[in-house]
Amino acid sequence: MIVEVIAVGTELLLGQIVNSNAAFIGSALADHGHDAHYQQVVGDNLARVAESIRTAVDRSDAVIITGGIGPTRDDLTREALCAATDRAMAFSDDYADRLRGWWRQRGREMPESNLRQAEHPEGAELLANPKGTAPGLALDHEGTLIFCVPGVPQEMEHLLLSEVMPRIDARAAGPSVVVSRVLRTWGQSESMVGELLDDLYQGTTNPSVAFLASGGEIKVRITAKADTKETADALIEPVESEIRRRLASWYFGSGDETVLKVIFGLLRERSWTIGTAESMTGGMVAAALTSEPGSGEFVKGGLVAYHLELKKRLLGVSDLDEVVDPETAIEMARGGRELLNADVVVAITGEAGPDPQEKPPGTVVIAVATPEDVRVSELRMPGDRERVRVYGTTSALHLTRLAVSGKWWTT
Amino acid sequence: MIVEVIAVGTELLLGQIVNSNAAFIGSALADHGHDAHYQQVVGDNLARVAESIRTAVDRSDAVIITGGIGPTRDDLTREALCAATDRAMAFSDDYADRLRGWWRQRGREMPESNLRQAEHPEGAELLANPKGTAPGLALDHEGTLIFCVPGVPQEMEHLLLSEVMPRIDARAAGPSVVVSRVLRTWGQSESMVGELLDDLYQGTTNPSVAFLASGGEIKVRITAKADTKETADALIEPVESEIRRRLASWYFGSGDETVLKVIFGLLRERSWTIGTAESMTGGMVAAALTSEPGSGEFVKGGLVAYHLELKKRLLGVSDLDEVVDPETAIEMARGGRELLNADVVVAITGEAGPDPQEKPPGTVVIAVATPEDVRVSELRMPGDRERVRVYGTTSALHLTRLAVSGKWWTT
Repeated sequence: MIVEVIAVGTELLLGQIVNSNAAFIGSALADHGHDAHYQQVVGDNLARVAESIRTAVDRSDAVIITGGIGPTRDDLTREALCAATDRAMAFSDDYADRLRGWWRQRGREMPESNLRQAEHPEGAELLANPKGTAPGLALDHEGTLIFCVPGVPQEMEHLLLSEVMPRIDARAAGPSVVVSRVLRTWGQSESMVGELLDDLYQGTTNPSVAFLASGGEIKVRITAKADTKETADALIEPVESEIRRRLASWYFGSGDETVLKVIFGLLRERSWTIGTAESMTGGMVAAALTSEPGSGEFVKGGLVAYHLELKKRLLGVSDLDEVVDPETAIEMARGGRELLNADVVVAITGEAGPDPQEKPPGTVVIAVATPEDVRVSELRMPGDRERVRVYGTTSALHLTRLAVSGKWWTT
Repeated sequence: MIVEVIAVGTELLLGQIVNSNAAFIGSALADHGHDAHYQQVVGDNLARVAESIRTAVDRSDAVIITGGIGPTRDDLTREALCAATDRAMAFSDDYADRLRGWWRQRGREMPESNLRQAEHPEGAELLANPKGTAPGLALDHEGTLIFCVPGVPQEMEHLLLSEVMPRIDARAAGPSVVVSRVLRTWGQSESMVGELLDDLYQGTTNPSVAFLASGGEIKVRITAKADTKETADALIEPVESEIRRRLASWYFGSGDETVLKVIFGLLRERSWTIGTAESMTGGMVAAALTSEPGSGEFVKGGLVAYHLELKKRLLGVSDLDEVVDPETAIEMARGGRELLNADVVVAITGEAGPDPQEKPPGTVVIAVATPEDVRVSELRMPGDRERVRVYGTTSALHLTRLAVSGKWWTT
């Protein structure tokens, strides 16, 4: 089944709210094995909502419309659905009675405008909405299933899962499932990962392979479709094995296994605490380490030694000519362990730019000291000041991961 | 100008990421006075991306396409744009040289697939992307402006604001000019600022007044359109005066006068240095203070005292029952001045959540110590862990601004 989502609401076009409904529905459709080719967002305008519905009906087996079914004048989805499917508006006396009962139960008089919610295109089925007053709608229009659900996420989610998905699943010839697996990598560019896996990307559509870059990490997503989860898993398995074999040590985690979770898992195994000694990143590595709940179990703290005087006085860095230097980073990491009384300290110094200082902008030097060893890595990063700091932070976390795993790196 | 956004990426259809790019662009368009009637999302499929572009070009004055311009084979936006506009693919030798330069600078060999990023539909202009390797594209196709920007939010946002919006604004203005002035405020909610300026917002379309909330600050944008810059300035002037009068002390700067620039200006006047002592924000305040070039002139550094042991040993915090406490924050700020040998230290502690500790999540305590005085403020912030940390950081900067100005605050 090809299913298209239309989100109705000018507030979405204005960016006043993020379209999390579309993501929720997209995720549910994938879970149930349905395909999505397009999503649309349209403002509260009768002609344009109708046009969006027509477009979606033409190219999809089912259409899910969120929003625009409340009681106010700018709720136009019902009217638009009539226009798009050339149907008259009907009125449900039963639902009007239920609405009156809902208000009576709350001891309040119902504003007449609420009766709009008992209106529906002829032939549509009303779907009970226990979390609100606007009922959902289900309509079979010339073989295409059309659903209207509220825009309020809680109401939408309930109606989607209890009423909409079962009807779409039933219509689908054989209920199939889509299973996705995300492999996380660090240490190679997106283009290099792409080339490494090019034949897999080209050679297979089920499972399919895709790439996603974010903040210095590259994610590889494998997606398979089959009758059952077991069959989909079986399709993914050999492709995943082959990809992990090729990614080798660049692979570090699957699914929601972030670098932070991996680091904390390793620290827990070894009962180690962690701290930071930062110059260029000015606290970003410490901020990243404390971004998740529960970080207090592992993170002692950190020193931002931005000024040379602090590097010397608090970290014991010797009076070198060069600050952006492997020896300095090592001294910072060692000095950080002393100062912070932490088992592991990651130290980072560099030139974020834009003006060239002692080294070219983009030079980043990272050292990690553990109870076992201390090593340093000098990297070069492209981009502006913010990007160098962000990518430097990501690199600091990953070198920390390698250090704490005991595998380290060679430079 | 009617502007349509197309977000390209199967991960959006699958609900693996939320389409925050569309919200960001929608907000920027609204802010600049442009109209949006539709948004589209389409998967990584050549024919369907091309179809989406054709649909958007037919009904819009400008189209902004995000995503699908990276180096891998599933990045199909360039090919789709050629198909949709019936143009051949051209190749920029200049950009190819720049790409090779970036990789050389990094000391690594460039995978050939990166050269895809030098491809572009004939007639398109390449837009430099300092935060990544994929350039943006600008194409005037039979009077419709078409832009391609990356899907990575940081890169998209930069290219949108620096390259795309000015071109759309210029086209919208035609022979006239659009002048915008941004007034920056802190200390009031968006709804309160909105109510304060409601009659101005309602009563005038030229200049128009808009609001933009970001990370705890509210920006008020005044936009005027006229034949000349002088006439536009003259339209803005009385409205700006009235708004600044009403905003009173919540106003702190105009245009690109960020809180950081204001703080650095005040520090320069007084020849003071600055540092941080952070718990809850884990380094975010120090990272913010060092985010701009030239911060080394003022910022000594900071201590992230996440663990109580560091608060006591390095900052001299006394053995209190409560850590999230005004007295603790004051001790942290005073101890920070000693430790860091800085004139001004801002200290922040609190409960970011999600789990309630000694105080409810969202409790934030900020103290600032200067050579003149030390004061503390206890705040309550709504939202999740990330939001509390971000808003806490913004508040720390603004209380620092007030402290360094010598005006302080009353609690």
